[in-house]
Amino acid sequence: MTGRRPTIRPVSSVDVAKLAGVSQSAVSRTFSPDGSVSAATREKVLAAAAALGYRPNRIPAIMLSGRSHMVGVVVGGLDNPFYATVLDRFAVALREIGLQVLLVQVADSVALDDALDQLAGYRVDAAVTALAVGTQRAADALSALRIPIICFNSRLTSPWISTVQSDNRTAGRDAADLLADRGVRRPAWMAGPRANAASQERGRGFAERLAARGLPSPTLLRGDDTYQGGQDAVRRLLSTSPPPDGLFCGNDLMACGAIDALRQAGGLSIPRDVRVVGYDDIPQASWQSYDLTSFDQQVERMVAATLDLLAGALAGPPGPTGGRTVRIPVRLVPRGSTRQGG
Amino acid sequence: MTGRRPTIRPVSSVDVAKLAGVSQSAVSRTFSPDGSVSAATREKVLAAAAALGYRPNRIPAIMLSGRSHMVGVVVGGLDNPFYATVLDRFAVALREIGLQVLLVQVADSVALDDALDQLAGYRVDAAVTALAVGTQRAADALSALRIPIICFNSRLTSPWISTVQSDNRTAGRDAADLLADRGVRRPAWMAGPRANAASQERGRGFAERLAARGLPSPTLLRGDDTYQGGQDAVRRLLSTSPPPDGLFCGNDLMACGAIDALRQAGGLSIPRDVRVVGYDDIPQASWQSYDLTSFDQQVERMVAATLDLLAGALAGPPGPTGGRTVRIPVRLVPRGSTRQGG
Repeated sequence: MTGRRPTIRPVSSVDVAKLAGVSQSAVSRTFSPDGSVSAATREKVLAAAAALGYRPNRIPAIMLSGRSHMVGVVVGGLDNPFYATVLDRFAVALREIGLQVLLVQVADSVALDDALDQLAGYRVDAAVTALAVGTQRAADALSALRIPIICFNSRLTSPWISTVQSDNRTAGRDAADLLADRGVRRPAWMAGPRANAASQERGRGFAERLAARGLPSPTLLRGDDTYQGGQDAVRRLLSTSPPPDGLFCGNDLMACGAIDALRQAGGLSIPRDVRVVGYDDIPQASWQSYDLTSFDQQVERMVAATLDLLAGALAGPPGPTGGRTVRIPVRLVPRGSTRQGG
Repeated sequence: MTGRRPTIRPVSSVDVAKLAGVSQSAVSRTFSPDGSVSAATREKVLAAAAALGYRPNRIPAIMLSGRSHMVGVVVGGLDNPFYATVLDRFAVALREIGLQVLLVQVADSVALDDALDQLAGYRVDAAVTALAVGTQRAADALSALRIPIICFNSRLTSPWISTVQSDNRTAGRDAADLLADRGVRRPAWMAGPRANAASQERGRGFAERLAARGLPSPTLLRGDDTYQGGQDAVRRLLSTSPPPDGLFCGNDLMACGAIDALRQAGGLSIPRDVRVVGYDDIPQASWQSYDLTSFDQQVERMVAATLDLLAGALAGPPGPTGGRTVRIPVRLVPRGSTRQGG
């Protein structure tokens, strides 16, 4: 018998039943939420389970009920601390209600279709995508899964797809008011990539409120939602034009890159020469080197709104969420980068 | 019949068979990796599947084989960009070999036990924990799952638990050499929390090499692996003592906090007055405001080593990985914070 591999199958309910001296069905009932079992039996089962390190297998229940108690969470690159925060808060909130996260990481929304096999294959009860659903084709493919889906900051909806958005347009207006109040005369707007609908809304609110305040249209800088993109966009601008005196950026990563380029390439001081506002309130916005005024999307509230939208679908048989749009107000977080006086 | 909910079950292989005019078994065989089916049948099945938006259900196969093709990935707080990067790289690498990530987020290693029910309940094929396994009790509980487990930067192993570590001690020595070469005379070491074994190794290598170079023992600053902790530790030090002229930090988050506190509370210049070295090479280390010399743990290589350790277990029936320890060399990334001259 030497050389034989040790038994490697997980401890089963049969093993527990044997040690506890009860039936396998008594073990099953002890570990099922609605199972009825006497206190004495339960005690024997739990003692045997603890001794053997037994943990119940959910797969048979998934097979029978068609419900996996998993939620697919689709994210783009986690290099953006905002997405890392969203994922973190979802994992915590879902665990609290007994659901697990099947992580679906996709490079961009074009790659979303690949993700759908994963979501369908494991019969996830619902999916949440922090990656915006940008095309009708992607929305149709998601809808065909016939599970409730919540998209963050997406404009497309369907009977199966609801969205939770931060109030991007109002935030853009608030940024314009803040910069106008600080005496900015040459505003600029750093947009994310064209496919980022939320970023477009922020820019629209910013431009319309600047106009209402009698200020010129903002100079457009095109970033790509990364630190490097923000830095490059400012360098390009400074090589041909005088600097703006107020800059609103579509996200904080670009704003941090912009600040570094304004200081290093432009020799400019923040906020004295240029006032800067970002979006997302990532941890780095509060780091002293940036001290960046930003908009907090209130991720906890977005997560709570998502779970509210999913509650019906997750409690009963999965059904459409009705294509609703929930808007979460953003919270301005003023910091040194827009300080009065400077 | 008005008011009846529309049918909400996912499209099944029976629906596809009906539309394609073939048997349900032909549909199953078309979508199973080893299934044999004629080219003509396959074409009909794929066309019907595309028309209906059918995606195969993996649950019956999981039930039969006991293999879920899911890997549990256990992480602590994703607020640390290093963990976000690790998770991102794992998700990409696992997807490439057809495996999915069941995300298990736990607050700290004390909470690890909660995570085990999740890992066991879904019969994950293996688990990877980026959270160090700090206690024998946690190691025993993990081993009882009888699935292969890889821990990052952990010292505990068991037949079921192997570890992949960055070469923490050598990195500590390299940091000492670099600072000594730059003429540092009053070195300091900012440690992470006591439970962080990897951090302890870094500090040990640093101290022993400083001694070998004839330099004094480093002043100990106690951080908690966060930006705020790094900032607070430097403030406490400066309130009672003269500043060090060289500082090695257990991670980059603490180093960024330390740099900001040295500048703002101490009025000191980096690298002229204090040279600073971090660990992890998070994206923020390369941001111009910090320009922080750091050690790249080479996450891609750690991920590749992990998949190598798991390869046997994931291909055949899951078995112990043999309690191996794989050390990955770290790569010094010199930047402005240790620049010569300053």
